[in-house]
Amino acid sequence: MERRFRLVLSCPDRVGIVSMVSNFISSHGGSIADANQHSDPTSGYFFMRVEIKAETLPFSLDALREAFAPIANSFAMEWEIQDSNRPKRVVLMASRESHCLADLLYRYHSDELFCEIPCVISNHDKLRSMVEWHGIPYFHVPVDPQNKQAHFDQVEQLILQHDADLVVLARYMQILPAGMCEHFPHRIINIHHSFLPSFAGARPYHQAHERGVKLIGATCHYVTEDLDAGPIIDQDVTRISHRDHPEEMVRLGRDVEKQVLARGLRWHLEDRVLVHGNKTIVFA
Amino acid sequence: MERRFRLVLSCPDRVGIVSMVSNFISSHGGSIADANQHSDPTSGYFFMRVEIKAETLPFSLDALREAFAPIANSFAMEWEIQDSNRPKRVVLMASRESHCLADLLYRYHSDELFCEIPCVISNHDKLRSMVEWHGIPYFHVPVDPQNKQAHFDQVEQLILQHDADLVVLARYMQILPAGMCEHFPHRIINIHHSFLPSFAGARPYHQAHERGVKLIGATCHYVTEDLDAGPIIDQDVTRISHRDHPEEMVRLGRDVEKQVLARGLRWHLEDRVLVHGNKTIVFA
Amino acid sequence: MERRFRLVLSCPDRVGIVSMVSNFISSHGGSIADANQHSDPTSGYFFMRVEIKAETLPFSLDALREAFAPIANSFAMEWEIQDSNRPKRVVLMASRESHCLADLLYRYHSDELFCEIPCVISNHDKLRSMVEWHGIPYFHVPVDPQNKQAHFDQVEQLILQHDADLVVLARYMQILPAGMCEHFPHRIINIHHSFLPSFAGARPYHQAHERGVKLIGATCHYVTEDLDAGPIIDQDVTRISHRDHPEEMVRLGRDVEKQVLARGLRWHLEDRVLVHGNKTIVFA
Amino acid sequence: MERRFRLVLSCPDRVGIVSMVSNFISSHGGSIADANQHSDPTSGYFFMRVEIKAETLPFSLDALREAFAPIANSFAMEWEIQDSNRPKRVVLMASRESHCLADLLYRYHSDELFCEIPCVISNHDKLRSMVEWHGIPYFHVPVDPQNKQAHFDQVEQLILQHDADLVVLARYMQILPAGMCEHFPHRIINIHHSFLPSFAGARPYHQAHERGVKLIGATCHYVTEDLDAGPIIDQDVTRISHRDHPEEMVRLGRDVEKQVLARGLRWHLEDRVLVHGNKTIVFA
Repeated sequence: MERRFRLVLSCPDRVGIVSMVSNFISSHGGSIADANQHSDPTSGYFFMRVEIKAETLPFSLDALREAFAPIANSFAMEWEIQDSNRPKRVVLMASRESHCLADLLYRYHSDELFCEIPCVISNHDKLRSMVEWHGIPYFHVPVDPQNKQAHFDQVEQLILQHDADLVVLARYMQILPAGMCEHFPHRIINIHHSFLPSFAGARPYHQAHERGVKLIGATCHYVTEDLDAGPIIDQDVTRISHRDHPEEMVRLGRDVEKQVLARGLRWHLEDRVLVHGNKTIVFA
Repeated sequence: MERRFRLVLSCPDRVGIVSMVSNFISSHGGSIADANQHSDPTSGYFFMRVEIKAETLPFSLDALREAFAPIANSFAMEWEIQDSNRPKRVVLMASRESHCLADLLYRYHSDELFCEIPCVISNHDKLRSMVEWHGIPYFHVPVDPQNKQAHFDQVEQLILQHDADLVVLARYMQILPAGMCEHFPHRIINIHHSFLPSFAGARPYHQAHERGVKLIGATCHYVTEDLDAGPIIDQDVTRISHRDHPEEMVRLGRDVEKQVLARGLRWHLEDRVLVHGNKTIVFA
Repeated sequence: MERRFRLVLSCPDRVGIVSMVSNFISSHGGSIADANQHSDPTSGYFFMRVEIKAETLPFSLDALREAFAPIANSFAMEWEIQDSNRPKRVVLMASRESHCLADLLYRYHSDELFCEIPCVISNHDKLRSMVEWHGIPYFHVPVDPQNKQAHFDQVEQLILQHDADLVVLARYMQILPAGMCEHFPHRIINIHHSFLPSFAGARPYHQAHERGVKLIGATCHYVTEDLDAGPIIDQDVTRISHRDHPEEMVRLGRDVEKQVLARGLRWHLEDRVLVHGNKTIVFA
Repeated sequence: MERRFRLVLSCPDRVGIVSMVSNFISSHGGSIADANQHSDPTSGYFFMRVEIKAETLPFSLDALREAFAPIANSFAMEWEIQDSNRPKRVVLMASRESHCLADLLYRYHSDELFCEIPCVISNHDKLRSMVEWHGIPYFHVPVDPQNKQAHFDQVEQLILQHDADLVVLARYMQILPAGMCEHFPHRIINIHHSFLPSFAGARPYHQAHERGVKLIGATCHYVTEDLDAGPIIDQDVTRISHRDHPEEMVRLGRDVEKQVLARGLRWHLEDRVLVHGNKTIVFA
């Protein structure tokens, strides 16, 4: 994969942003491989993502950041520049259900997801063999229902030790404490097995069956303090019928969950997801 | 279209129902053109729909009903037999938005929906010309916000006068009073412009925009006393992005609404929808 | 709708295009409302579409074109600038099937499609009343199977007389002569009732039934000399089953045809479709 | 899973088939858990699938077959009765691409697909470790381009030795010789990475890119002598855009291939697919 610098920014909208950014790039001979922008008339904000062919710029990543900072400051941008050659470090968390974990491991193994997976953490020991076959360390951190905090302390420790850029809850069935959500803002991705905001919380397929819906879905979102209410990255649905009891819904839903989570994770890894308030801009 | 008798039934499940029904049909020389059945292990109920080629039976519709009644009674069936050649009488109701109404009128006009439309009722006079071009009477029944009941009394009167088998709320934006819902059980179909149970009530596209969902939808359901909570007949969704403000969501949603309503209505007209509790069995 | 100038361009890719274009705009105080770009590594071409808020520029449309021309020339661009306030003139053509025509007329009538429809041309007289209800002139130009050229001469005459920017074949079932295709390059849009390249030519639903496919589709494309082989603008599909005989496939397919044609037309009207060779870039 | 006998039959349509079959079942106290039927007016054929709760019948599988045979003969049925508790034996074949194989192995491993996999055969040694982790023997049978028949002889030998009910070509990139196709009629399932009949043969994603289609797809079908022309079991598509070069199409297509193959295989394993001529009836 050709190396690229990915500039992602948001700022209050005004005349001249694109011009200033593209001038900066072209004045240094930079070749733009891909670019997306979005003006939101409601919030008055402007969002942009530019991929620059790294070899066409006379900068290291750090030098590029330094050179761009004055422009960023003059427009009051929130911004970052990422190197497409540097894989993000992603800690996966799971419980007993293996479908999302197995799917992500396969995509990682087959080079479809560009990242490093320093470890998998689970509150059960069930999926160890599958994980270790991929050459990835597996940490079993049990949950004591009387003292869940001990579990989360240990989990947070592991995340920090492994220097994670991102945590993915691949059907990890515990509710994270508020503190942990705050420590990793927009750095924890969850897959919820319903089309949110319908059927938040426990046993969404049973809720869906109870209500008699004709489609079931899955939602990939950033985790915030509010359960299943964080910024949505992607969603999808699949059709069911009166024949499908909760067990079949669980089976059919798995394929949607896997795809939605893999897609959302991929977009995050490629720096395509910008968060603004409780919404996302996805430059897919 | 070849004339058919449609037998639709539900009853507690037990051995021998299909055998008894199919024996009854074949013993009179009846040829089955289509048949569907469903056993619900949760409720212990059995559901069936059979289309019999009318010409192969030596019965009129009434005689067929009479002949079948003893079997129905012995299995404690809820049942009906419909004649595919008899169009149902469907009263359409609308407000100012024309897309669902225009779509249904077109499908009716082009013989895609087999029914009669004795009249259209609206609380505005805006769509009169479109309706009358189709040769259908248009009744403008204004709503006095101080006395809505007068409006509903007049509407109910019109429905009864026109001998309606079914009422379709094609984006009719008033909430029906409980009494009216009870008078026409499973005989009023509504299209709600969200993927229920998300975003029930007013301005669902604005609610969806607020939440930042990535798909919007529509739901066709029978009207009950509980707002937007009746048995769901069909649902569908379409993808949106961060670019789509509520106005674009309204536009994109229209196509979903039209299709979901038309499909749900068609299934009802063909006696394919069975209601059990708050759910539907759709033999599509 | 806020007035916008839409700049659409393509040229050989090289460093500095975005910078030059955005500088030009911002140096005149122009505010960019929307922008898309695409670099195709295979062809080495660059494609761009920019919407500028017209009120922020000190130019009339003509003056803007004049001011931009030197930049365009220096990059060897194919380009155009359109005024979002100027509706394109679209001549619709149909035969006996009304679904696509009725759908486009409704969208036009309800201001969903921003265009003018100076007339409808058909080789049958069947749809006159529907068209005239919309206040649009209807020209019945019969086809003599022994002398089709006379028909096409008359059609071409009408198109020119009505100063059409675009011709839409809304299930017009005649094959256009090569000469006519050449006269209106990328200015004739057709809807074909299959998922091209499968089932080109006559009776695609019957071909699909014969082959036993599980999805049927529709394709909206620009018309070229080669039958059903022009640049594809949009496609979509719907699921069918073994129950669906060609008649049901025709019915189910209609909804796909309508949507795909309306979407493709809308994109064309909004100057979102760029043609390169036999492919399209759609900045949707 | 509750044990069931699955009766699947087809025969020329006439009055009394359902009655005779259901009488047979109910007269022995059999409880029908699921039933589907289809009359094809074009061919004049009738198709039926019935699931009977095994415990409600006083028969072993063999005794049931014997008891039913006279009825089957009197209607000239093609028929079979399968025991839901007996897993089919499925030999998987692959080349170098692992996505379909890994997906099927995962579904097998997680009990989503009820079958036995006695072995995997490949013309490369690349996927051995993945297969053996699942406890499944792996046979590497290289292909000599000068003498392909030796390869196929060995493959056929392995299939017979392992007593396969079914062979699944999970992106096995060799064209089977006609003789082998004939030896296993409707017992070899292939996944082709296009929406057939478009883009049969080699490099379908490149063909699709060349044509500029807006959706790509996959097709699961029974293998016959005619390349990519056998009876279609299932198909699906996914949307692409001008941004997607063949490499991205390959990536996006993988998810469709996996799902279509898994769904088609599942239906086959559950005896839901009936072949008639070059088409399938799928009682899904």
